[in-house]
Amino acid sequence: MTGLSELRARGAELADLDAVQMLLSWDQLVMMPARGAAARSQALGTLARLNHERATSAELGEWLAELEGVPLEGIDRDIVRLARRDWERARRVPDALAAEIASAGAEGQQTWQAARAADDFQMFAPALSRNVELAREYGRCVAGEGETPYEGLLGDYDFGLRASELTRLFDSLAEALPPLVGEAERRSPPRSLEIPVPVQQAAVAGTLARLGVEETSWRVDVSAHPFTAWIGSGDTRVTTRYNDGNIESLLSSLHEYGHALYERQIDPQLQRTNLGRGTSMSVHESQSKLWENHVARNPAFAELLAGELGAAGFEISPGELHATLVGVKRSLVRVSADSLTYPLHIILRFGLERAMIEGELAVADLPAAWAEAIERLLGLEVPSDALGCLQDVHWGAGSFGYFPSYALGCLIAAQLWEALVAELGPMDDELRNGEVERIKAWLGEHVHRYGRRLDTTELIEQATGASLAIEPFLRYVAPLAQASA
Amino acid sequence: MTGLSELRARGAELADLDAVQMLLSWDQLVMMPARGAAARSQALGTLARLNHERATSAELGEWLAELEGVPLEGIDRDIVRLARRDWERARRVPDALAAEIASAGAEGQQTWQAARAADDFQMFAPALSRNVELAREYGRCVAGEGETPYEGLLGDYDFGLRASELTRLFDSLAEALPPLVGEAERRSPPRSLEIPVPVQQAAVAGTLARLGVEETSWRVDVSAHPFTAWIGSGDTRVTTRYNDGNIESLLSSLHEYGHALYERQIDPQLQRTNLGRGTSMSVHESQSKLWENHVARNPAFAELLAGELGAAGFEISPGELHATLVGVKRSLVRVSADSLTYPLHIILRFGLERAMIEGELAVADLPAAWAEAIERLLGLEVPSDALGCLQDVHWGAGSFGYFPSYALGCLIAAQLWEALVAELGPMDDELRNGEVERIKAWLGEHVHRYGRRLDTTELIEQATGASLAIEPFLRYVAPLAQASA
Repeated sequence: MTGLSELRARGAELADLDAVQMLLSWDQLVMMPARGAAARSQALGTLARLNHERATSAELGEWLAELEGVPLEGIDRDIVRLARRDWERARRVPDALAAEIASAGAEGQQTWQAARAADDFQMFAPALSRNVELAREYGRCVAGEGETPYEGLLGDYDFGLRASELTRLFDSLAEALPPLVGEAERRSPPRSLEIPVPVQQAAVAGTLARLGVEETSWRVDVSAHPFTAWIGSGDTRVTTRYNDGNIESLLSSLHEYGHALYERQIDPQLQRTNLGRGTSMSVHESQSKLWENHVARNPAFAELLAGELGAAGFEISPGELHATLVGVKRSLVRVSADSLTYPLHIILRFGLERAMIEGELAVADLPAAWAEAIERLLGLEVPSDALGCLQDVHWGAGSFGYFPSYALGCLIAAQLWEALVAELGPMDDELRNGEVERIKAWLGEHVHRYGRRLDTTELIEQATGASLAIEPFLRYVAPLAQASA
Repeated sequence: MTGLSELRARGAELADLDAVQMLLSWDQLVMMPARGAAARSQALGTLARLNHERATSAELGEWLAELEGVPLEGIDRDIVRLARRDWERARRVPDALAAEIASAGAEGQQTWQAARAADDFQMFAPALSRNVELAREYGRCVAGEGETPYEGLLGDYDFGLRASELTRLFDSLAEALPPLVGEAERRSPPRSLEIPVPVQQAAVAGTLARLGVEETSWRVDVSAHPFTAWIGSGDTRVTTRYNDGNIESLLSSLHEYGHALYERQIDPQLQRTNLGRGTSMSVHESQSKLWENHVARNPAFAELLAGELGAAGFEISPGELHATLVGVKRSLVRVSADSLTYPLHIILRFGLERAMIEGELAVADLPAAWAEAIERLLGLEVPSDALGCLQDVHWGAGSFGYFPSYALGCLIAAQLWEALVAELGPMDDELRNGEVERIKAWLGEHVHRYGRRLDTTELIEQATGASLAIEPFLRYVAPLAQASA
């Protein structure tokens, strides 16, 4: 069984390199002096190259060959299964293509930034075309038997998801959601609340402390865009941001907490193996959305949040706070969308990126297609590409197939929450008092502990007893259409 | 010339890995939640192993063989020269020995910590014996023709230094310094000044700002032990610590600034090559000591420091401040020693560690030998091993040959400062006004820019026109024996 111990040692090394890359990125966004950027990008490049080299090396193939047909059980069996899948997938991508994608992505992101600032799609189009072509070629390399290039790309984020299944789910959502929006908007209060930043900071700190965030194994910092870094067992770092004019900090803290909790509750036996991280982008996003949509936006939890704000000197009734947190207002910008219209922003992007990759939409026609989709899904007019197809970094950076996980996360979160409540009963009393131990335990038991041992589809079916569906999410958003202050 | 470009690429990779290791260590000491320690030590272990593997790989030897006899000039010639030296040196150490040294060092450090807390040398002795034996074996591997094992160890910190030369310098110092101590002590004011921490923080920030520390390429943080991390061009991080009862923060900030400035002023062409860092521990320490001893402890600079303290609300005369900064008081503890007695602490350690490595002093006899040397050099009695041979981490961690650089730094700093003043004239007016541009430029020109292109001895001779000697340091400390409030 030399192969197995070698494989495990390499897995530990790759897990360490992942953690190091995550720390470097965290530092870059939270601590690094501005002029450290060039050296940081070189260091990250070197680590990515080493990581790729070690993940695709020939000896890994030899160890896997040694283990072919060897009967294994439990964790070992999954370690070898995933190692084989990852290695075969990575080996299908020529080094030259991987390198070109990396440099096109870095350049594309620069170009995108300039183009967005100038609101000039023509400036961005050549970089986007290059990224689309490279992504298509990459998708072709990694696509499984009978899969399209776009499905190949999806597999990087959510292994096993089929584009046809996504299309079915998203088409239904695109029909079900728009009719709810008008009524929800009419009943919503203005979404902004002028809560001073120091009050928000105190409320965020107080709320996270109730959820178990303590300083011996967490950091909470500020960054331009909120994110979570899991550096190692006992070292989890979330960030948020504060603006006087809104209460995004409360929602985003809970959102990042959900990502963090997932990684923290993975079975310790999986640490430093290839199984020891969240199984997919969509399940990860479901964990953040569960805490954002089903905890932070829960009417009972609003009592706790209002109490935290009150303790910091800002009086607001739980009802008013809740109404604001669930308020609906159509907007052109994905990142500031409410929980009802958010999936529509994703459905739009899914349709367009899939069409570009599959060669059905020319890059030059993207702005018009975007405008048409925004009109159809949200009834809004796009005044500029900066507020349209230039708003997100993803395509500029070369990421295609990533967007769907944002909407899938909303669906999975709703389905998991219904299963949780079906098993544990109504959570209102506990949420009102900030008691989340049973929620954490349920998620740990049914979702977190598996790490990568279960893929998205299998995990959802095992945890909820049903295939992924849109109904739980529709049941979650239905009352939003009736929410009022 | 494939060999050369491969060699340069590997050098860039190794430089990046060094920077990454430094960032991880900085983060560990400044930012990391306590429970991240286990994962951090694994990540650092993985990076060290990868670094070692890439630094000693067979293909490096092949590239060097290709370049054998190829005429090269300038930087390229030095890159190949140092790559050959480093590679040959590293290859002489068997992997098993390197691994055992690493684990013995980690374990020894733990044992040392417990033994020091318990003031129990017997608890520490077995770990120390093991470290001494491993270091002796390592020293034998790397020692050059005609060098002893201890000289081999020295080479890791200061390539080219001979123990016999060190002995000659240190013996002279051990004769010259003690007679000065009594008078200096009598004339010194009490060394502690009760300056509130917020005042110290403002004065440190103000002073560093005058030296060019600005937030786009520096960080200044707090850590348990002050240190400097150079993460990359444009990303330098110093730390200090604050205590109500003393003004260590002022001296230590200038000390770390000296380390930082060295790395920042290395020729940019040497970045990401094997030449792009300070050439040795002793020259590095000379740069910190230059700013600590010859700038921070300069009477003219005391005017500036007193002004910064005054601006923060603490009134003190420059004369009183200066007298406190240069005050002499014999103590048992190296890290809190004044600038006159400091080298004596090092001379003691040099003698003892050399004797242990060369087999002339048994580990069991260390406490008695320590007590005898403290009595002889400082006229003090050692009340406990915790305040004696258990006070420093170095031997517990497996570091032998490192201590001398601390004293060499003092000597080199004094010699460089005399050369600087000889060339530029008296610096008092400039120091009084916080104008340090000419000092920075002189150090950049004569010391910093070379990186590793010149070894310690050659660098000192070129910069000062003379071999390393103790007289400049004696001239620096002589007035301390007359310092008075």
